[in-house]
Amino acid sequence: MAITQDVKLGQGVRIFHPELVNLYGCALGDETKVGAFVEVQKGAVIGARCKISSHTFICEGVTIEDEVFVGHGVVFINDRHPRATASGQLQTEADWQVVPTLVKKGASIGSGAVILCGVTIGENAMVGAGAVVTHDVPANSVVAGVPARLRGSAAAE
Amino acid sequence: MAITQDVKLGQGVRIFHPELVNLYGCALGDETKVGAFVEVQKGAVIGARCKISSHTFICEGVTIEDEVFVGHGVVFINDRHPRATASGQLQTEADWQVVPTLVKKGASIGSGAVILCGVTIGENAMVGAGAVVTHDVPANSVVAGVPARLRGSAAAE
Amino acid sequence: MAITQDVKLGQGVRIFHPELVNLYGCALGDETKVGAFVEVQKGAVIGARCKISSHTFICEGVTIEDEVFVGHGVVFINDRHPRATASGQLQTEADWQVVPTLVKKGASIGSGAVILCGVTIGENAMVGAGAVVTHDVPANSVVAGVPARLRGSAAAE
Repeated sequence: MAITQDVKLGQGVRIFHPELVNLYGCALGDETKVGAFVEVQKGAVIGARCKISSHTFICEGVTIEDEVFVGHGVVFINDRHPRATASGQLQTEADWQVVPTLVKKGASIGSGAVILCGVTIGENAMVGAGAVVTHDVPANSVVAGVPARLRGSAAAE
Repeated sequence: MAITQDVKLGQGVRIFHPELVNLYGCALGDETKVGAFVEVQKGAVIGARCKISSHTFICEGVTIEDEVFVGHGVVFINDRHPRATASGQLQTEADWQVVPTLVKKGASIGSGAVILCGVTIGENAMVGAGAVVTHDVPANSVVAGVPARLRGSAAAE
Repeated sequence: MAITQDVKLGQGVRIFHPELVNLYGCALGDETKVGAFVEVQKGAVIGARCKISSHTFICEGVTIEDEVFVGHGVVFINDRHPRATASGQLQTEADWQVVPTLVKKGASIGSGAVILCGVTIGENAMVGAGAVVTHDVPANSVVAGVPARLRGSAAAE
């Protein structure tokens, strides 16, 4: 099992396979569900009643509000210019800054999407499967493609 | 190990790392091979002599015929408009319908491809690596790109 | 734990979750770091002071030089025309040839990228997140998109 003691779990959180996830230093809100092969890094905050599907990676700097759907194999990013080393030595936390990303209430992120850092995905927005999101996504909109572009409006529930 | 008792395994199925997969309620045909970090959901049916490569997700509603190659990190989908909640409560199975997908005999799906729901991938077709498949793929054709478009014919064996 | 005895580990290699990786027959250089849910196949060679991030797949035929950053969910490929079977029987190693790929010193590969086989990614080059690399990438360049195209120059450190 790879869930460290410092993970904050709300009431009724369901982690279907604790032995097949890697969660550390993060917070998950009430009733949120987490699939297999998911990694959530320190500092990431996930709201209540979210679904975090299998094979997804959520990094430091990401805030996900309540009732958000995150599909399978979704990847978040927090570094615009990643490098392994600085001056020939492995980078440390001093060598780069976390760029934050915000996913607002009720949004859905399709499977296989890649979310560049520094963006806000608006309330109830829908990101198509396989999209690469490079800019902010307006509330109640649908985006898709590489790079992700506006395709229409998300039906209100 | 995350292989539930209700998984139907044909003769000679090879699951290289039973402790690193998540298989439940699915069926795998004779001699099919399954890599690490693979999830196959209930109701998914996979034929004989298939290769299901590492990091791939196969969901409910997917039928894969015999002799199909599925690359690494491939993602299938079964919901056109996924949402975490309905009226503020976590969705249940009553809130959405599975949209089926069919992969026909001898097809190959390249690594990193995303397969939208409701499509049929024809016999012996080849889906390029990283493609996002949004429409049916004709038999014996090659498709690639986002969205996947026709690029040529697959050589018959 | 899925790290076979034949894996060659340099000094100070850090594998954060040995129970959640699948490494066999490969070599990792000094001080290289490996995240969770990573698979590295036999014959793959990874240099010193690299970062191999979670959910990444590195196949036979791939050589990664020193100080390379490989993001999360990156997929390498070594077969141009993958098939599950040949003449109705599961393919064996006799049925196909490994096509090699080379990633040169100091390069960075963004998360979610797919690297087709037979390419060289030049020194200090940067591959954007979600890119599908189908051709060689010049040293000190930035590429992005599907297929990946030149977008600029990578800043020298």
